[in-house]
Amino acid sequence: MRASRFLFATLRETPNDAEVISHQLMLRAGMIRKLASGLYTWLPMGVRVLNKVEAIVREEMDRAGSLQVLMPVTQPASLWEESGRYVQYGPELLRFKDRHSNDFVLGPTHEEVITDLARNELKSYKQLPANFYQVQTKFRDEIRPRFGVMRSREFIMKDAYSFHADQESLQQTYDEMYDAYCRIFTRLGLNFRPVQADTGSIGGSGSHEFHVLASSGEDDIAFSTESDYAANVEMAEAVLVGERAAPSQELKIVDTPNQKTIADVSAFLNADPAQSVKALLVQGVAEEGQTAPVVALFLRGDHELNEIKAEKHPLIASPLTFATEAQIAELGLTVGYIGPQGLVEKGLTVIVDRAASVLSDFVAGANEADKHATGVNWERDAQFTEVYDLRNVVEGDPSPDGKGTIQIKRGIEVGHIFQLGKKYSEALGCKVLGKDGKPFTVTMGCYGIGVTRVVASAIEQNFDEKGIIWPEAIAPFEVAIVPMNAHKSPRTLEAAEALYAELQAAGYDVLLDDRDERPGVKFSDLEITGIPHRIVIGEKGLDAGTFEYKGRRDAESINISKDELLAKIAK
Amino acid sequence: MRASRFLFATLRETPNDAEVISHQLMLRAGMIRKLASGLYTWLPMGVRVLNKVEAIVREEMDRAGSLQVLMPVTQPASLWEESGRYVQYGPELLRFKDRHSNDFVLGPTHEEVITDLARNELKSYKQLPANFYQVQTKFRDEIRPRFGVMRSREFIMKDAYSFHADQESLQQTYDEMYDAYCRIFTRLGLNFRPVQADTGSIGGSGSHEFHVLASSGEDDIAFSTESDYAANVEMAEAVLVGERAAPSQELKIVDTPNQKTIADVSAFLNADPAQSVKALLVQGVAEEGQTAPVVALFLRGDHELNEIKAEKHPLIASPLTFATEAQIAELGLTVGYIGPQGLVEKGLTVIVDRAASVLSDFVAGANEADKHATGVNWERDAQFTEVYDLRNVVEGDPSPDGKGTIQIKRGIEVGHIFQLGKKYSEALGCKVLGKDGKPFTVTMGCYGIGVTRVVASAIEQNFDEKGIIWPEAIAPFEVAIVPMNAHKSPRTLEAAEALYAELQAAGYDVLLDDRDERPGVKFSDLEITGIPHRIVIGEKGLDAGTFEYKGRRDAESINISKDELLAKIAK
Repeated sequence: MRASRFLFATLRETPNDAEVISHQLMLRAGMIRKLASGLYTWLPMGVRVLNKVEAIVREEMDRAGSLQVLMPVTQPASLWEESGRYVQYGPELLRFKDRHSNDFVLGPTHEEVITDLARNELKSYKQLPANFYQVQTKFRDEIRPRFGVMRSREFIMKDAYSFHADQESLQQTYDEMYDAYCRIFTRLGLNFRPVQADTGSIGGSGSHEFHVLASSGEDDIAFSTESDYAANVEMAEAVLVGERAAPSQELKIVDTPNQKTIADVSAFLNADPAQSVKALLVQGVAEEGQTAPVVALFLRGDHELNEIKAEKHPLIASPLTFATEAQIAELGLTVGYIGPQGLVEKGLTVIVDRAASVLSDFVAGANEADKHATGVNWERDAQFTEVYDLRNVVEGDPSPDGKGTIQIKRGIEVGHIFQLGKKYSEALGCKVLGKDGKPFTVTMGCYGIGVTRVVASAIEQNFDEKGIIWPEAIAPFEVAIVPMNAHKSPRTLEAAEALYAELQAAGYDVLLDDRDERPGVKFSDLEITGIPHRIVIGEKGLDAGTFEYKGRRDAESINISKDELLAKIAK
Repeated sequence: MRASRFLFATLRETPNDAEVISHQLMLRAGMIRKLASGLYTWLPMGVRVLNKVEAIVREEMDRAGSLQVLMPVTQPASLWEESGRYVQYGPELLRFKDRHSNDFVLGPTHEEVITDLARNELKSYKQLPANFYQVQTKFRDEIRPRFGVMRSREFIMKDAYSFHADQESLQQTYDEMYDAYCRIFTRLGLNFRPVQADTGSIGGSGSHEFHVLASSGEDDIAFSTESDYAANVEMAEAVLVGERAAPSQELKIVDTPNQKTIADVSAFLNADPAQSVKALLVQGVAEEGQTAPVVALFLRGDHELNEIKAEKHPLIASPLTFATEAQIAELGLTVGYIGPQGLVEKGLTVIVDRAASVLSDFVAGANEADKHATGVNWERDAQFTEVYDLRNVVEGDPSPDGKGTIQIKRGIEVGHIFQLGKKYSEALGCKVLGKDGKPFTVTMGCYGIGVTRVVASAIEQNFDEKGIIWPEAIAPFEVAIVPMNAHKSPRTLEAAEALYAELQAAGYDVLLDDRDERPGVKFSDLEITGIPHRIVIGEKGLDAGTFEYKGRRDAESINISKDELLAKIAK
């Protein structure tokens, strides 16, 4: 590509409304432009990256045996009513009527459409397993679109869906997709981790997220220092460490006037927060026709409740809902001064986090306003119903696989694989005939990659103060050639043209910067747009038989021979 | 691809609701399935064709120097209000509100969005010409979607838009796009014609349509028998032939009771319709504050009015509107009995078609109920204001370029290139700085290809009673290999596998039909899906060292050597 015929839409200033670095750099590098809130036009510089990402995704999906299909963006509401999601999905599902007043949605995902296709096209167990993917535009009506294409309303997804006779077959395809995803993100040149994930509202039984590691990530990922264990903090198990020591202190009631938080109480009593427990009163599960009972949760003072873990407990309401002031008052308790003493006796279910359960001689509320108890001990002073994993892991916790300890990093979710089970196939009646001639409901998996989001996440992981630093596989151009003072020196231009032709013939994606601009402008443009290799052709180099080369991560350029140059840019 | 791992969704029966052959065969070949009215899912067999079409379109657009972009499917209504099309476009423009009650549309086309981009990104004449394209999903809320993907609501378009300093630059890019389109449709293997077209409601000054010739086409295309002249019948000029002979008959008034149509009158008078004129009274252009005058058009009795030509006449209202009964009565005329005699004297503008203007001794209405005139002659008996090209060409007319005569064939419009001029750049204020430092409004062109429609049109042009016959460039697979009785003969399967590996390595898109099906089922599937080359591997052939080969258009298979086989399938 000749730069004079390309759209360089680089910006010198950082746009005001771009909060994250990828959004800033995608605007500044002339990759995207905002059309409206959460809607972006991809400029030529951006489309080149997008196409390379898509090509790698498609190649690996094809290689893994998934068959490409293309489903409509617009979907009839009736299918979403069948699955129950027309109501469930909430306002992110954009609903509209066509000219005949029929109800439609703009698809944020395609489980309903593919399951409808499968129930019509798949007749026999012989056609299973089946695995279909598409690369397609999706729409999610985010209430507050932000971070550019990272959380936009219109975006491109690779979504795949598989159909199986049984769990074993699903697990096999799931594992193949796991491997394909690892190949995809490796080929994209990203530092990523597959992590165990919660199955969330979509339902189902097994799930991994693929995260690109970047300090700007929205998710906390827990890793082992010694093994390949990785899980979303939402999911990471906090294992039980140690045993409870025998009581060594008497229980004492102390005045703690106006000291309600763990921090306040610990400071006031000159105690370690890790040597105290905090109470969280939440709604339990109501029996039919009854109001929900209150459930008391106790965690160590320095730990945080993991709501997703709590919601999975059969006695706790999901979504997690805190007890009302009225409920607490009715129990005769005061917020800020609640301890476990006597609660089981009052008929409450008391669930204690593993770490809190091995404390002895700890501080807790005294169940009396402005008073705490010290030297509290389980069983002697306070009963509990059950010990349960209720908290978020923290750095230094032992890894659940027994190898090393936990460290926590931030990640950007770019992929998600999911064992859906029969959620959609049951709702839509997707059955095939089994070996015995009887129809059975198929088991499903789904597998997504946020194609547009991958582009932004690659930048979040690869940039410096000068701009983007692309992994070579997805750079808009691999090599840029800059002739110096080409207008005065035909010899320079000639040499640049010759190298341009040679490298193109050798299969490189080359940009010849033949623009009528100062070298400083060109260098700055090439840096901000993140082109991996820059070659400057000047009179001096031509005399000396060398090329001025600078890799995008290099501090200085070097003068090297043609052979050395070819070695530098070799793939 | 192994057929056992592919989705063969062929149907034996022709679906009831498919009217045209491409729709029938796309369903029967398992290429598409209907999701809702005008919405189709593309199955793996269809996507393979779609991908090949898209790749050729993209390669040639890139080669022609157009830069790929990607604009959103959803567009803010405000841009459509700026261009005036929010109201003009009618109910085919799907309008909806997002969760914040802002107005949006689903894009049927992207002139507004690209002009908005250009007015923000293009600053100087130095950046012109600029040419951007995308391959993208469009939505048009057709009142009655039909013919499968030929006239669907959601479809894929390649749309390109160019920006220029002047008409000369526009013409140059237009010509380059014309050439690129010829290369695209040639590479796709289609019998097509670029034809001069009307610029329609989109406005502008120059336009060509690209038509795939097929008897099921919706458009009539006029060709020269001797040259490459081709135009949509809407546009084809009907040239003046011959000169008017001197009058040889007296004007006579004859009774023609209840004979109002040309057919009736001609039969009643035993005259040739080509020797009569028919009148059409239409609305003229009103002066400010006045009601529109009536304009009288006269054509030869056997010719048809071309409304598009008539609308271009400066004295005729556009859109063409017929005079009301009240207006006709006020002129003292009776429908069915109107002749040109005395109309100019009544103050009417009388416009005569070229062919009607060279008649002498003709039949016309007598401007009196139940009476016609014979032996009418222009100038002696009837005056006219002007001679004008008002009619549709018919087969046998001379070609307007002076070479050969006109023949008319049916075509399917698959591409359209268009000189937009300043319609959108003026409406949206798209200006750049000129050499003189002053801003000027840019001139635009637009260039579309219906990617999904190309697939259907290729079938309309290439099929037989057994199914589709793909041009090789867009066939889902180029070669199919069928091992006979593979389950009984490991030798056959082995030979098939070896040939499969060899042809794949040589770059062919090969299907190995390893399904557990009868040969008849396989052959029928390969025929309906239109795979160009079929190779059957059987015991006999293996003994004889030959392969059973059948091209999709061949009546019979032949046994040939490996070298002959490779020659047959060579690209």
